Formats: sequence, structure tokens, C-alpha cells
Amino acid sequence: MASLLAFSVLVTGSNRGIGLELVRQLVEMPEPPKHIFATCRKPDGPRGKALEELANKHTNIHVIQLDVVDHSSVKAAVSVVESYLGGKGLNLIINNAAQNSKGFLLEAVEQQDMLSVYNTNVVGPILVVKEFLPLLKKAAKETATEELGCSKAAVINISSLIGSIGQGFDVSVPPVYAYRASKAALNMVTACLTLELKKDGILCTSIHPGWVKTDMGTEQAPLTVQNSVQGILKVLASLSHSSAGTFLDWEGNFVSW
Amino acid sequence: MASLLAFSVLVTGSNRGIGLELVRQLVEMPEPPKHIFATCRKPDGPRGKALEELANKHTNIHVIQLDVVDHSSVKAAVSVVESYLGGKGLNLIINNAAQNSKGFLLEAVEQQDMLSVYNTNVVGPILVVKEFLPLLKKAAKETATEELGCSKAAVINISSLIGSIGQGFDVSVPPVYAYRASKAALNMVTACLTLELKKDGILCTSIHPGWVKTDMGTEQAPLTVQNSVQGILKVLASLSHSSAGTFLDWEGNFVSW
Repeated sequence: MASLLAFSVLVTGSNRGIGLELVRQLVEMPEPPKHIFATCRKPDGPRGKALEELANKHTNIHVIQLDVVDHSSVKAAVSVVESYLGGKGLNLIINNAAQNSKGFLLEAVEQQDMLSVYNTNVVGPILVVKEFLPLLKKAAKETATEELGCSKAAVINISSLIGSIGQGFDVSVPPVYAYRASKAALNMVTACLTLELKKDGILCTSIHPGWVKTDMGTEQAPLTVQNSVQGILKVLASLSHSSAGTFLDWEGNFVSW
Repeated sequence: MASLLAFSVLVTGSNRGIGLELVRQLVEMPEPPKHIFATCRKPDGPRGKALEELANKHTNIHVIQLDVVDHSSVKAAVSVVESYLGGKGLNLIINNAAQNSKGFLLEAVEQQDMLSVYNTNVVGPILVVKEFLPLLKKAAKETATEELGCSKAAVINISSLIGSIGQGFDVSVPPVYAYRASKAALNMVTACLTLELKKDGILCTSIHPGWVKTDMGTEQAPLTVQNSVQGILKVLASLSHSSAGTFLDWEGNFVSW
């Protein structure tokens, strides 16, 4: 089985939920990345404690402030990441930071909520890729293998099954306009990034993490965050040329757009 | 062949391009709607002249100010439309107003442009449907037939083939992140509206108008606005229960999500 052998990985929204568990499992791999850039909006806030404690135990975890909707914060994070990389590229970005919608039905849709969710879930990931692109390109060039993959240069967008239009709608799940529209748009961004960056050796794939017991997924969810992330990391290790511009779930199954 | 026999139709962005041509061909139908609400952002501006001239010739065209991203303007338009309808419902809304992206490639993506395009192309159409919903529901109830359709109660979202993720990407067409992401999100809105409103007798469908010679489509486009709109109106007349939540082109062919 292929292994994830990335020299460096950056995770957004890494202070809790799936993001925090990604950092935890990445650092515990037999051959962990030399640099894990664990980014979040407020590393010093009360919700940054668990990440701080984890980082205190591992010198290869670097906690970095990065608010995906604040362009200057994204640019500042690039400088910090560069200072650690010592001239090398960044192999893998996991765009995990996301925001849920406040309103579920049409009557509850609010313009500002729609824009805010889109800003975090779609514009943020694009800004992150735009600013880190020189480091991704560097990683793609310095990796000997021609095969695309997360050990070379890749962008993983954490999407959601409920961002799939084609899979058919479970009538028991509400529309949640802002969230669903943002994830459908994020899937389009995965396709657009593939169109533009595949030729540079950069892979881009959308991943549905499953319905997970997190603050966003609630306790009702059937899947633990540990099992979801185990699956995601196995899938990331297996990605190749044919995974570019696809939408996969945490078990590696194709999800329709 | 089925005919479009709507008592009332509202078109956004109706001062030029596809919107203006929709109003022109709607009013020239053998049995035109009793009320055509031709809305646009600035009816009194220089770009409102052609619509004004058309409206001067037809008493059933009502030109109404409606800026889809200005919630108070949408609410004000509802009051004006209600005053014309005299207690009856609104049969058909064509969400046509849209905005193109400034940047085509990743390096040209700007946060404010992304948000502005999403606001016009996705949030606007939702706000329009949200505020006009009581009038759509009224139209659905007062129409005798059970069959869904544009003569009963419907929302048509003018989308685009380049908002389809599944159709495969022509490498000669640039990613245009902001525009493509907005149209993919709009298609999700079509699906969400179907999920919520089909039970109330309201149809919602996405339509790709073709690549049309308009200000947005440029002169390079192969299709005239007249031919595109002829096709669209034929398709609208044919929509039924099975068209709910689908994505069709101006010739009635299914487009993949």
C-alpha cells in the first residue's frame, strides 16, 4: 500500500474536530512529515488549548495563526511557513477550515450568513492556494517522481456529501442553502484548480469526511473523528494522477458532483 | 406542444441581453402574460433606455427597480408587483441577472470580486425567491392543474454550462473561478429549492442559455440572443414534474451537474 511521505503538510482549522485529529494522526505516522503547519484563526484563544498541548509534545508541529478570510493573515502565514521550510517547497495543503450555516430553510436564509459561509468555505481555500502556490510549485519540481500525489504536491479540499447535487437528496436532510451551495462551489474550485495546476504537477481532490461526531457534525453523527481521519489519511496516501479533480469519500469511493 | 400560459412573469436583469429579449419575446407571444414585471437595477439609467422604449409600446410590461443584492429593494419590488396583481399570485420568476468575474486565472482571483459575483449570482436569486415566495405559493394554489410547470408556479435559474462540474472541462476555457463557482452554487440552489418547494407545487429548474452574443458572451459567441431565447421559452413551456430540480440547456437537453 502507498504511504503518505510528505516532507511538509499544512492544515487549516486545525484547532479542533477533523483538523486537530489530522494533525494528531499525521504526527503519529511511522514516518511523519518533517513539518506540520497547524493553522487556525486564534491559536492563543481558549479553543486553541488542545492544539497547543499537542504541539508542545512534538517539535515538528508548528502552530501558525491563519484566518482564511483575512488575506493579509494568509500572506503572513506564507512567510512563517517559508522560514521553517528553509528553501524547500510545501507538499500538501488540507483546506479543512469551514463554517456552518445559521439557517436551514429558505425563510431563515440571511444575506450576510450566505456571504460569510461562502467567504470561509470557498474564497478562503482559494486565497490559501493562491498565496501558497509558489511553495506548492517548488515542491512539485523538487519531487523526483512524475506521478501526482500527496507526497509530491497536492491540495485537498474537505467538502461534504451534502455539497453533491447529483447524489440525490435525502428528504429528511434540510436544504441548508448557505452550506450546501458553498460546498458545491468548493467542488467546482477543485475542478478549476485541477484545470489550471495539474500541468504543474499539483493534484487537487475534494474529500467528503463522512458525517462525523464534531462540533459541526453533532453527537448524532455515526462516525468518530478518529475513524474518519484514519480513512482520509489512507485515501490521501493512495491518490494519484487519476484522482485529480475527483470527489472521494473517506473510504475512497467516488461521490457524484 | 405545450404553451406557456402564465398570467404573470417576473424577469431580473431585464434591461439588456437575454433578460431584455425574454421580455420582448414574452410580450410577442400569441397569448402573452397579463403582467410582465421587467426588473433591473437602474431602469432610469442610460442602460435602461431599450427596456423603457419596449415598455412604452406595451401596457402589460411593468418596469420595476430591483437590485437583487439589495434586500430592501427586493422587498420594495414585492409591494409594487402585488399592487399590479390585485390579489392574484405570481406564476413565474426568471432569475436572469448575473455578473461576470474580473479575473480568469488563480493569480487574478480577488476576494471582493469572488464575494460580489456570488452575491449577485447566488444570494440575489435566493433573496428574490424568499421574498416573492408568498406570491408563488398563491399562484400554485390558484392554478387548477396538479402538474408542475411555468404556467402554474416556477423559478427558473439562468445558469451556465461552465457551472457544470461533471460535463468535463474544455482546456481552452479558463477556470474563471468566481463565475464558475457561483453557477455551480446556483445549481445547488435549484436543487435545494426543489427539495423545499416542490411539495408546494413550485417547480425549480436551472437553464443553460447557450453561449450567446451578449455583452457578457461577447461577439465571438455562436448563438444569437433571439435564437437562445426562442429555445428557452420553448423549454419553459415544456417543463413538468420530471423537470423539477434538473439542469437543461436552451434546447431542452440535460446538462450534468
